[in-house]
Amino acid sequence: MTAIEHFWAVIPAGGAGTRLWPLSRSASPKFLRDLTGGGRSLLQGTYDRLAPLVEDRVVVVTGRAHRDAVAAQLPELGAESILVEPSARDSMAAIGLAAALLERADPDGVMGSFAADHVISDEGAFGECVRTAVEVARDGWLVTLGIEPTFPSSAFGYVHLGEPLDGHAGVCAVREFVEKPSVSVAQEYLATGRFRWNAGMFVVRPTVLLDLLAEVDPDFAAGLREIAADGGRLEALWPTLPKIALDHAVAEPAAAAGRVVTVPASFGWDDIGDFDSLATLLESDETTETTVLGDSSLVHALQSTGLVVPAGDRLVALIGLDDVVVVDTPDVLLVTSRARAQDVKHIVAALRESRVELT
Amino acid sequence: MTAIEHFWAVIPAGGAGTRLWPLSRSASPKFLRDLTGGGRSLLQGTYDRLAPLVEDRVVVVTGRAHRDAVAAQLPELGAESILVEPSARDSMAAIGLAAALLERADPDGVMGSFAADHVISDEGAFGECVRTAVEVARDGWLVTLGIEPTFPSSAFGYVHLGEPLDGHAGVCAVREFVEKPSVSVAQEYLATGRFRWNAGMFVVRPTVLLDLLAEVDPDFAAGLREIAADGGRLEALWPTLPKIALDHAVAEPAAAAGRVVTVPASFGWDDIGDFDSLATLLESDETTETTVLGDSSLVHALQSTGLVVPAGDRLVALIGLDDVVVVDTPDVLLVTSRARAQDVKHIVAALRESRVELT
Repeated sequence: MTAIEHFWAVIPAGGAGTRLWPLSRSASPKFLRDLTGGGRSLLQGTYDRLAPLVEDRVVVVTGRAHRDAVAAQLPELGAESILVEPSARDSMAAIGLAAALLERADPDGVMGSFAADHVISDEGAFGECVRTAVEVARDGWLVTLGIEPTFPSSAFGYVHLGEPLDGHAGVCAVREFVEKPSVSVAQEYLATGRFRWNAGMFVVRPTVLLDLLAEVDPDFAAGLREIAADGGRLEALWPTLPKIALDHAVAEPAAAAGRVVTVPASFGWDDIGDFDSLATLLESDETTETTVLGDSSLVHALQSTGLVVPAGDRLVALIGLDDVVVVDTPDVLLVTSRARAQDVKHIVAALRESRVELT
Repeated sequence: MTAIEHFWAVIPAGGAGTRLWPLSRSASPKFLRDLTGGGRSLLQGTYDRLAPLVEDRVVVVTGRAHRDAVAAQLPELGAESILVEPSARDSMAAIGLAAALLERADPDGVMGSFAADHVISDEGAFGECVRTAVEVARDGWLVTLGIEPTFPSSAFGYVHLGEPLDGHAGVCAVREFVEKPSVSVAQEYLATGRFRWNAGMFVVRPTVLLDLLAEVDPDFAAGLREIAADGGRLEALWPTLPKIALDHAVAEPAAAAGRVVTVPASFGWDDIGDFDSLATLLESDETTETTVLGDSSLVHALQSTGLVVPAGDRLVALIGLDDVVVVDTPDVLLVTSRARAQDVKHIVAALRESRVELT
């Protein structure tokens, strides 16, 4: 696989992954963890997947608290490749800052934004999809990678396909972005064949992205460009930037204006939103036994199914439980069911409310 | 409550309590643990219950591995009050050894045998029941305490009542001892009103016990008496003694011979056979929440019921599980359901089979 000229990978590395607590913590979030058992963190996996496409043109955007961990996990990156946000201001500011810097650094550049905490199963297909997306983006489109849905998920947003784009087989306009639907609505989406999962992966020329932003919020785009022109302005301007996701700030209005297209993506993708999806990702085809993330010699299960994470270096014995989730860490133990995996965030919220550490 | 003259309490302190693993271990068995959350171990609770009835006439029979722990938990006992078995040879040998020693030490004595790992809820009623049992035992009977069944348990053996004994209200002959029945058979037992739980509590004159044993196994009784006469013979003779429970060795044949009576006992009793019965013992009347044995500030439960033992000094979070059992210890975690609590022994057996420590 050859690298794509003038293509830059932007990796926003933020988000606590609260529903994966206690594996994911504020101080050690999801993207820094190895959740696939392959020996590399999700961030490292994201880098590994992109490096063949971009060579050294990688920018990671992260918070102050995680700069050292990111640098340690990705020693290939020079210090200038890690952009540090003074505070968390959501994805538009994070990705927009990278866009403003790249706009100046490489006027012929195309950037792709790929979250640091997703999992993709077919890297060859991913690479081909990105290659197509970059080609299309050079023509001035905001390009999304639209994942072929494999089930009617209520955990993901969708893109609604419009007319085909001439000259690029399979590439379609995006009529609109739709928020996470109910399962029944998702079933209707799948039946039409005209909806894809929105994985939050965008490919676009930096100038196009910032100009789209300027159409809806000129001050926001100007602020980002001002910081890029004079790094000394970062601390002063950053706190004034709106806290908004790129989807809402740019992608939705741009879709309404007919400026967004999507490249069909058939590779396996997951954002590992909770322990239920982690279990699905890890389990073997014939799931009659417990799925273990970690040292399986620590787990002794009798007539049980579900997910066990023996990260506490202790023996874990399970008897007669179906679809259970057991996450054992040195200082916290979580026991729930796959069906209730979404509710982990409530426990975390309650602990924060009562000022218990460990989140 | 005044002490009962010439009454001796014998406390066999053995048994691993395998179904309460990992709380109960070979090295730290059930009777040494505080399973009621009251701050005293089951052994200490047994001693506390008996001390008012016997003053200092207490004998604990235990294994070599536990002698020091027993002495530490019961500093009131003199060294001569702790009988150490060279090896585990079941209850007939353990209780028989105490009987043979007491036969010599106090020819007018009556002994009562009370397991070290049971829980009794009404100590006043217990004391009165024992007082009656001692009176009856002085006449030469082997006396059991027959617990009024509160539900058709399949986890306990039963005594089948015969004719009333003249002169002692409520005391009846025992027609036979019956093994743990099925629940449906237990229901039939309860319907007749003629069955009581066999809690393994016997009150008897030492000489009567040994003579009953001599009728079925003269060598066994002679061996015990030989050891009592000459302590130097213990190491040589002990390994030759049959490994058999007192129930089978003496109580069942004696019942068949019309030599056993039972005193009705209305106090609450439990042998805490597994985590299900422990949960029942600990739970409040209105069980809509998780029952915690230990520091409840460590447990954060959301819409869950069951038993949590946070003995690992870590935060335990539970979400959406009913009748779950979570036992967290520093080196082992057990997760199961109340319904499967009996199967804990299978995990322990499997671990021993594969030579894993920690049991």
